[in-house]
Amino acid sequence: MKATVLNDIGDIRLIDVPDPVIRDPTDAIVRVRLAAVCGSDLWPYRGREEFRPGDRMGHEWIGTVEETGPEVTRLRHGDLVLAPFAFADGVCAACRGGLPTSCRRGGFWGGAHDGGQAEALRVPFADATLLPVRAAVDDALLGRLLPLTDVMATGHHAVVLAGVPRGGSVVVIGDGAVGLCAVLAARRAGAERILAVGRQPDRAELARHFGATAVFDGRAADTAGRIIEQTGGGAAHVAECVGGQSALDLAMAVTRPGGTIGSVGVPNGVDRVDLYRLFRSNIALRAGVAPARAYLDVLAADVLAGALDPSPVLTAAFPLTDIADAYRAMDRRRTVKAVVRPDGS
Amino acid sequence: MKATVLNDIGDIRLIDVPDPVIRDPTDAIVRVRLAAVCGSDLWPYRGREEFRPGDRMGHEWIGTVEETGPEVTRLRHGDLVLAPFAFADGVCAACRGGLPTSCRRGGFWGGAHDGGQAEALRVPFADATLLPVRAAVDDALLGRLLPLTDVMATGHHAVVLAGVPRGGSVVVIGDGAVGLCAVLAARRAGAERILAVGRQPDRAELARHFGATAVFDGRAADTAGRIIEQTGGGAAHVAECVGGQSALDLAMAVTRPGGTIGSVGVPNGVDRVDLYRLFRSNIALRAGVAPARAYLDVLAADVLAGALDPSPVLTAAFPLTDIADAYRAMDRRRTVKAVVRPDGS
Repeated sequence: MKATVLNDIGDIRLIDVPDPVIRDPTDAIVRVRLAAVCGSDLWPYRGREEFRPGDRMGHEWIGTVEETGPEVTRLRHGDLVLAPFAFADGVCAACRGGLPTSCRRGGFWGGAHDGGQAEALRVPFADATLLPVRAAVDDALLGRLLPLTDVMATGHHAVVLAGVPRGGSVVVIGDGAVGLCAVLAARRAGAERILAVGRQPDRAELARHFGATAVFDGRAADTAGRIIEQTGGGAAHVAECVGGQSALDLAMAVTRPGGTIGSVGVPNGVDRVDLYRLFRSNIALRAGVAPARAYLDVLAADVLAGALDPSPVLTAAFPLTDIADAYRAMDRRRTVKAVVRPDGS
Repeated sequence: MKATVLNDIGDIRLIDVPDPVIRDPTDAIVRVRLAAVCGSDLWPYRGREEFRPGDRMGHEWIGTVEETGPEVTRLRHGDLVLAPFAFADGVCAACRGGLPTSCRRGGFWGGAHDGGQAEALRVPFADATLLPVRAAVDDALLGRLLPLTDVMATGHHAVVLAGVPRGGSVVVIGDGAVGLCAVLAARRAGAERILAVGRQPDRAELARHFGATAVFDGRAADTAGRIIEQTGGGAAHVAECVGGQSALDLAMAVTRPGGTIGSVGVPNGVDRVDLYRLFRSNIALRAGVAPARAYLDVLAADVLAGALDPSPVLTAAFPLTDIADAYRAMDRRRTVKAVVRPDGS
């Protein structure tokens, strides 16, 4: 079958690999219907995160169950399944405590594991990892569900970590897919004021569509001052959805005393966390990789009920054979998020 | 009158200064009964924190009201008063929100303001800042109340920030007065297991007296591993009561995924906060200067009821005239906490 690997910095390739097979009795083999390129895929692609040449790529995907191991009981051939970006055993203390991303037997798609930017994958702990969706799913619904596998779950986590209350205000930093989804998650959580900070003018419209009540230019020198002014001294809830130094610095600057920062961007190049600033103003810093599996059921239910639609973050589509073009489009910020279809449609 | 100033690094002096006078109608003049030297006083004393030569010193003190401005209504001449380490106006959004340490019109004792290691002080916003104690107070009770002005309130804050639940477990890092008080605060909060980490063998006994169920040597190489083992994978609640790099690193190492670090030591020399560690394991870092005034009433009520006694942290006493000796004893770790008495008793 075909699978995407990172061969070198900036060098994404679709290569032939052996078909995945059941290894453990809890495995399933899943054929990929739709996958996406994530902003975090760009870190190793740009050489800003370590990788081994040949690492499999892709952790956002939806597929159809093709085969199940003898201990898989909740899934059957032909099921459409949503996968979170991490697999987990579902039975350990971390999983039972709602933190499947801290499961010691779990892991992330890609690298030495199978990746989602491929024709198929072997899924460990399939019963615990996958959410079957037993509804009529057309292409449009597939697009609404795909973001739940990572960016929508992560945006939701930012809002959870920041403790955004119904009727409250939140500052969302970042206009990547996660930041935009955090805006949507904040609206879903009932926030009345959603102040979004981005760098790309064309994404402001999408932020507003998702519920942002004001959009600020993250590159303008006075952005922090304007947000502090408009929030009467800083925001009580700030969602940091980038993971870079300037985004964190802005989050620290606009959080009011006693406020909370929910930080969900994968930290990259962050070498300064001003502990004294946190200390002086009693600011809580709650960083975390989203326990996406723990959110999948409720978010999928909202999508199926027509109450949630993050699909506008999917702004370009490619056949899997053009995966290198999909990366290039993301890298050059020509698209918010690119999807790839193994069937080439 | 006599007041303590920091003349140079390691050079503490008791000098003659003008008597304090009422400047604003909300001021009070308070004569000091008992004051203490704080671990944080040692930072400038050791040259590890900026100061201006001649800065007044001392932010832990109890006194008697001598004079009140025309707008002071809750205090009268002769009242015994507890002061938190920071004054605040009591009416702003921060004060009303329970964060008097973020009051913009407030400040900390010492520096350009009057300090507590003196015969008397001018107290701004006296009604809001001071807690009158209208009970018969002998010397022993004075010693039980004094730690509430800073170290006991700060230890309590660590337990609040770390979210220690009744019946839960907590790791307390630091065997200074704040760490020891955090142990006491954890017991007061109903923690069942209190794992204390210190460096001084003679303080382990005091930690146990305050409620520690186990005491670890912070300098031993395997301390983190032993704590992780004894907590079944790390602690859900960690109180960091030092403010130094190694204490923070230890806190990060022993916190379990999804856990919370309450950090109350004044950050000093902390230049690495591993954001990726927080992110990867969904650890909340809640640092904060204690809003001591917000805790004073309830802690003082416990002391007066005989339910709380932090006075064992006061391990040495000096007349105010020997303030330089008190600093030296603290600096050389010959005492946990030194008190000074302006009346020389």
